[in-house]
Amino acid sequence: MLVNGAASQFVNADDRGLAYGDGIFRTLRIRQGKLRNWSIQYKKLAHDCAALNLACPDEATLLTEFRQLIGDQSDGLAKIIVTRGSGMRGYKTPEQPKSTRILSVHPLPDQSPYFLKHGVALFLCNLRFSHQPRLAGIKHLNRLENVLAASECNDPKLPEGLCLDMLGHVIGGTRSNLFMVKDGELRTPDLSRCGVAGVQRDLVMSWAVTQVLKCTIRDICLDDLIAADEIFIVNSAFGLWPVRSFQGYNRDRFPISLRIQNWLNHEDE
Amino acid sequence: MLVNGAASQFVNADDRGLAYGDGIFRTLRIRQGKLRNWSIQYKKLAHDCAALNLACPDEATLLTEFRQLIGDQSDGLAKIIVTRGSGMRGYKTPEQPKSTRILSVHPLPDQSPYFLKHGVALFLCNLRFSHQPRLAGIKHLNRLENVLAASECNDPKLPEGLCLDMLGHVIGGTRSNLFMVKDGELRTPDLSRCGVAGVQRDLVMSWAVTQVLKCTIRDICLDDLIAADEIFIVNSAFGLWPVRSFQGYNRDRFPISLRIQNWLNHEDE
Repeated sequence: MLVNGAASQFVNADDRGLAYGDGIFRTLRIRQGKLRNWSIQYKKLAHDCAALNLACPDEATLLTEFRQLIGDQSDGLAKIIVTRGSGMRGYKTPEQPKSTRILSVHPLPDQSPYFLKHGVALFLCNLRFSHQPRLAGIKHLNRLENVLAASECNDPKLPEGLCLDMLGHVIGGTRSNLFMVKDGELRTPDLSRCGVAGVQRDLVMSWAVTQVLKCTIRDICLDDLIAADEIFIVNSAFGLWPVRSFQGYNRDRFPISLRIQNWLNHEDE
Repeated sequence: MLVNGAASQFVNADDRGLAYGDGIFRTLRIRQGKLRNWSIQYKKLAHDCAALNLACPDEATLLTEFRQLIGDQSDGLAKIIVTRGSGMRGYKTPEQPKSTRILSVHPLPDQSPYFLKHGVALFLCNLRFSHQPRLAGIKHLNRLENVLAASECNDPKLPEGLCLDMLGHVIGGTRSNLFMVKDGELRTPDLSRCGVAGVQRDLVMSWAVTQVLKCTIRDICLDDLIAADEIFIVNSAFGLWPVRSFQGYNRDRFPISLRIQNWLNHEDE
């Protein structure tokens, strides 16, 4: 781990990231020793920092530090947290905050490659995401909703939970973005009120443009989802998982999902 | 500062309190070297820990550690953070989490005693609190909404901001609970969808019972508030501040507020 560039396992106990979740983070895939999709990941990082009025760490610094941490490791996950740094007690942000950046590298989670080809079963979370347009889309550190939702089910055969918002709209997985395919078109939930707009979601949408495939951002309810031809979920750690089953939904063919998975897998090489 | 009982300024950089805001906290007033309202503060701590399925630190341990930190300091603030401890990357809670507790002592904030007698002016926050019944009332570490709301105004003459929820209901201050007085009765916002239910709020409600004064928990809109005979805000740090002005509301007499302030001030002696 590197904390503000120095090898350390510790952060100041008065860091505002700990006190209030006053910060943002990102998780990136390391493959063949390189950070995947770095440019778009850094753009997202800068965007999220700006949304909270946090100073974003310099790109070259981050790349140098990640290279140092990755060393000769081939595969894994990299994580960066940026907080508003140490602060006085009290919610009000300091006049001249000094950001804290925490970079770490982790092994890939132990996930079955079976899911990639044959799809996953989802559980439906009881927890509903709240609406907060001011924070929607941002990968900030206030993630208790995700913690509670993800902890609702411990069955390894159900590796991801599906989350709805307070109005019953489908938002995505606890740690992933969701797409559905219907009549040859893609749809993905509107994340302007809650949810995290991840890099893989952006990539899929940009791919759709190159394929002249219609992809719409819109409210999706459970009935829409169950009537889908295909459903798939994406994140930077596992890539793309087709959804095999969920409530009354059961599919065993995922032609469009697997085509996109293949593209994501070779993109940025 | 004491981290898990040991003098330290640091916590593990992989603490889930930092990663996800997966924890809770409380702020207590120290007066004459003692923690005010300890019993009810500890009950709240235990309640909030239980709400997040966190192990609550032992009461005797906390008291011993706070005594050590307070030493011969007479006045100040004490703070405790309890998190789900270090964890693997990933939202799902560890099977056997080991809580982290962080105890600290701080000087009293530099606040004018003028506010206590003559009241404060409030600003109205643009940020609206989101509805999350699963987390409402709990003093958890996901406090970005409070950070953003409190940071909207830097005028020291407006020491607290008033927050509404998404439906326009009055919830309270950015760091305080709110009461209004109307026709000799108390009203305080319903906090079952958002907000933090603080110890001073409980104390005022229990005081009302002893005075056979009606105190109702209900939705309050801005029009209700502006028509109030008195408004006051409470928290453990400043106690009770009458509200002198806010939008179209202006008052210079606060008989009931000052009576409650006097009681709060002498309570638990």
